[in-house]
Amino acid sequence: MPTIEQARGWYSSADSVHDFDHILRVYQTAQHLGKIEGADMEILHAAVLLHDAIGSAPGEQARKAHHLASAEFAATILRLEGWDDERIAAVQHCIRTHRYRGTGEVPETIEAKILFDADKLDVLGAVGVARVIAYAALNRQPFYAEPSRQFLEQGILEPGEPHSAYHEYLFKLRKIKDRLFTTSARQLAEERDTYLREFFERFAREMRGEA
Amino acid sequence: MPTIEQARGWYSSADSVHDFDHILRVYQTAQHLGKIEGADMEILHAAVLLHDAIGSAPGEQARKAHHLASAEFAATILRLEGWDDERIAAVQHCIRTHRYRGTGEVPETIEAKILFDADKLDVLGAVGVARVIAYAALNRQPFYAEPSRQFLEQGILEPGEPHSAYHEYLFKLRKIKDRLFTTSARQLAEERDTYLREFFERFAREMRGEA
Repeated sequence: MPTIEQARGWYSSADSVHDFDHILRVYQTAQHLGKIEGADMEILHAAVLLHDAIGSAPGEQARKAHHLASAEFAATILRLEGWDDERIAAVQHCIRTHRYRGTGEVPETIEAKILFDADKLDVLGAVGVARVIAYAALNRQPFYAEPSRQFLEQGILEPGEPHSAYHEYLFKLRKIKDRLFTTSARQLAEERDTYLREFFERFAREMRGEA
Repeated sequence: MPTIEQARGWYSSADSVHDFDHILRVYQTAQHLGKIEGADMEILHAAVLLHDAIGSAPGEQARKAHHLASAEFAATILRLEGWDDERIAAVQHCIRTHRYRGTGEVPETIEAKILFDADKLDVLGAVGVARVIAYAALNRQPFYAEPSRQFLEQGILEPGEPHSAYHEYLFKLRKIKDRLFTTSARQLAEERDTYLREFFERFAREMRGEA
């Protein structure tokens, strides 16, 4: 079983959006959800500690496929720990399916559903606000740009329209709550989702000079 | 008189904390305060547009002395526009004294007080939250670290203690409201300060896993 101290080393070059504090928060949330939902805690813990291990440094090209690279890395680590193939495959399934934007494969086991939910809960609330703002800053995207009608209706940018932190909120964050799999995560999401929405509504008013 | 379009060019390489959207928000706030306080609007507008012109690109070494460099740049621009020495000096006084952390020189004219206040209002409210988080991310500081007792009492970091976004809130942002010069700015600050405090108190609870 990989330890938290061992895992810390895998995230030493991560940016503040995907750093080890994120892993520790997801770990704590997954622990809570896992107990309620009756998950295999060993598989869940390994999946949490390894889920962002590859591709989380700033500007890494691998970011888009980080779930696949991290799943490969997980197999290497767990094989060294003497895990059998079936349990390694179970961890890999969790890691491959934790991304929000579909890859074809969806979480099927309770452990995969919990990793997905615990990871997504960390983009809600005040921490979610900080992470989406920091992500935009690190990628030189503006905080706010007026979304086009096309973006509001179809989620597709018009030519010349920048993808701002506010766009990310509209396109992804405000829909997260309805994408969660477990009842216990949905309960946790309720209040954090409300806080996030109120933040971005206020933020848009301030940025438009209406406040 | 420098125009807004002319000014936009001076900020083309700025990060999202000091970009032209920040200038436009300060411009709008200064316009509002200037009318109430009876300021010389020409001096105030020139000071707003020029106050961060030098040293606002990410990682620029000049950041610490950006107020001095921007004041020099302002003189060059305004001389080209045919301004007389006295009015140029008035704009330079505003720019040199707009920094929060003292440089010995404090705002003495109403225009300088308004630039200071309008610039500081932009680190309160939801926009203030976004700017301090983005600043930390761009400078590879963590979002949150437990502040030491020494930091809480004296504002001085202990050896090994990182300066996080939360430290910046404790050390600077929560004191801003009481540092403002004009009554009209203090009125605007009241509600934005409350929002900022509530954000960071909630943020600290979430980061400590207490939420």
